[in-house]
Amino acid sequence: MPVLVMKFGGTSVANLDRIRRAAKRVGVEVAKGYDVIVIVSAMSGKTNELVGWVNETSPLYDAREYDAVVSSGENVTAGLMALTLQEMDIPARSWQGWQVPLKTNSAHSAARIEEIPPENINAKFAEGMRVAVVAGFQGISPEGRITTLGRGGSDTTAVAFAAAFEAERCDIYTDVDGIYTTDPRIATKARKLDKIAFEEMLELASLGAKVLQTRSVELAMRYNVKLRVLSSFEEQSDDAGTLVCSEEEIMESNVVNGIAYSRDEAKMTLISIADRPGIAAAIFGPLSEAGVNVDMIIQNISEEGRTDMTFSCPTDQVARAEKALQSAQDSGEIDYRELVADTNVSKVSAVGIGMRSQSGVAAQMFKTLSNEGVNIKVIATSEIKISVLIDRKYMELAVQALHDAFELDKAG
Amino acid sequence: MPVLVMKFGGTSVANLDRIRRAAKRVGVEVAKGYDVIVIVSAMSGKTNELVGWVNETSPLYDAREYDAVVSSGENVTAGLMALTLQEMDIPARSWQGWQVPLKTNSAHSAARIEEIPPENINAKFAEGMRVAVVAGFQGISPEGRITTLGRGGSDTTAVAFAAAFEAERCDIYTDVDGIYTTDPRIATKARKLDKIAFEEMLELASLGAKVLQTRSVELAMRYNVKLRVLSSFEEQSDDAGTLVCSEEEIMESNVVNGIAYSRDEAKMTLISIADRPGIAAAIFGPLSEAGVNVDMIIQNISEEGRTDMTFSCPTDQVARAEKALQSAQDSGEIDYRELVADTNVSKVSAVGIGMRSQSGVAAQMFKTLSNEGVNIKVIATSEIKISVLIDRKYMELAVQALHDAFELDKAG
Repeated sequence: MPVLVMKFGGTSVANLDRIRRAAKRVGVEVAKGYDVIVIVSAMSGKTNELVGWVNETSPLYDAREYDAVVSSGENVTAGLMALTLQEMDIPARSWQGWQVPLKTNSAHSAARIEEIPPENINAKFAEGMRVAVVAGFQGISPEGRITTLGRGGSDTTAVAFAAAFEAERCDIYTDVDGIYTTDPRIATKARKLDKIAFEEMLELASLGAKVLQTRSVELAMRYNVKLRVLSSFEEQSDDAGTLVCSEEEIMESNVVNGIAYSRDEAKMTLISIADRPGIAAAIFGPLSEAGVNVDMIIQNISEEGRTDMTFSCPTDQVARAEKALQSAQDSGEIDYRELVADTNVSKVSAVGIGMRSQSGVAAQMFKTLSNEGVNIKVIATSEIKISVLIDRKYMELAVQALHDAFELDKAG
Repeated sequence: MPVLVMKFGGTSVANLDRIRRAAKRVGVEVAKGYDVIVIVSAMSGKTNELVGWVNETSPLYDAREYDAVVSSGENVTAGLMALTLQEMDIPARSWQGWQVPLKTNSAHSAARIEEIPPENINAKFAEGMRVAVVAGFQGISPEGRITTLGRGGSDTTAVAFAAAFEAERCDIYTDVDGIYTTDPRIATKARKLDKIAFEEMLELASLGAKVLQTRSVELAMRYNVKLRVLSSFEEQSDDAGTLVCSEEEIMESNVVNGIAYSRDEAKMTLISIADRPGIAAAIFGPLSEAGVNVDMIIQNISEEGRTDMTFSCPTDQVARAEKALQSAQDSGEIDYRELVADTNVSKVSAVGIGMRSQSGVAAQMFKTLSNEGVNIKVIATSEIKISVLIDRKYMELAVQALHDAFELDKAG
């Protein structure tokens, strides 16, 4: 029988009622003839409670023990989901990561999946079991210890299972009903997309769209796993939610498919820094070591051996960045006159695979912002994305104006 | 290095503070030179929460899923205990049942331990690890599924580890400071025993002393594991608590070492039942099938082919017993005139291995009760125990009088 993977996040299994509701959704797919693999998160709040205990016990914790403790929440949900399905007369059983086994490397708390042998679960499907409920987020290391996959780990588990079992689709049930052209809280005209390409989803995810983790989208793209994002809180039709799939399966598409934003960005400028070969490494090496996520980088033309260097990073990393640069200055690795931090900027981005084949998108974006009187401070582009830094007070205005300009309220 | 097993129950690990306190006790033993195996229960209340969820989800639950859910509480404590010990610079790691592996049979929710191979943990001790923290109550079945050991399972886990690792002792930390000659709430002169024989502890446990489960005492007796029961809430000296050990290690002992009681007993009498060979089986077979725990049994002399049969059982099983006997009557398996239930009785027992070698204990017991005007309704004796059923209103009086008569307030 064809296999379907269904993943339910923490809010979708927050209590016994919601687990029953999710189980009913599983029952619908079983009735259609699918063998289903259900990936569950911990009941919402449970993982945070466990993480809190670990942090309070041991601030610099042994990640192996952290994983052993934190993974327990998913085990509870997996068992309860299996019991709920059994109550509905659907043959089901639970699997913990080590039972599958979902084999990972030994990078505790951020482990990479290495292999999911499908034999054990397939043997049970062959015996008539219809649903395998798997505790998400966890695996087993070569040393036989429990590992966890890090943030968004259950999404990644779901996609990896879909790849290993050549599932027809991987449905991610969450608390939103799909991927939108932009944040509906900012632009009321925001429209749910029926389909979006992996590449676009990746850009949106890395820009802060919280629905899917970058890592799970990457994995889906690599193995060409069709991902569907949909709400566990609404009655579902067969074409509910948003399908994240390869470009080839999207017949028509707008040039721009999404407007993303990141509210709390900072623009940092090193003024009059002594320029020499290797200067970029001397600046960004220490920043990286200090855990600063540098996003955009701009270097001015060098004059008389000195230049200005501008970069952006999240606001809450400014202090860390200042400290790292000051200490590089003190040790003589770099030599700058002044460091100026502008912490009142936001990033707004237009994303769309259509940009590849259509020119003028950047020009239209700049013109739109100019018409609204929004000054652009930094520009960065990729093949399918244009990002600008602007004053934070204009952020909502910019998102709305760009959404209108690229006619995102109309289907492509 | 010599091995010590230390078991901490739910109230001893109820929160992070108590886990730290327990870890300090472990540290004291490590400093003495022991390699320590710590068995932990779930934080108090956690297991009940999980059991509640399972029952609400599925009243006739799949015991395999029940075990998978319910065992998760111990995993959390094990990880947190290992982290706490590491914070104290004591090399420690956690083991879940399947990791040891603690092998059981497949009787889910009431599994029997079959084997604990010591190799994995001993290899870590050889590498310098000083404490193995093991999640109690759980194991792994031959099918690779998680099992739990049933009520008192963590005590049983502790004793089994002590046997498998030939531990010097198995210390059970709990919320009482030892085994008493009787319930201190009833007899203020109750005295804590320094030592008690396995056989005596078994009788007291089966009579309702809640400190140790019968099963763990049986296991300790079979493998001659020295058990020490002591409080996790008091500063401990080396001879704190009560040592449960073999008779040979107890030099001097009172004839009677404990007065136990069971408050809610019922005395059931089948009046004028037709007597024939096999009548006892015809009565007690159906009762056993109905889950009635029959304790004492008395049969009067048969006259003209009819007799009276009296037995005792817990009060809350009376309805079940009546139903089972009525249906045996209806089907013609037995033939009695009347069933009389006296639900206002209690059982009081005197226990002591000294009884074996000293006569007159029963006589002294009956005389003491007679002096207090307490009428004895049923008597049952074993090699080291005399039990009587009496009216419930005399129970406290009887316990106190017997405690005085056998001078249990004085050390033997």
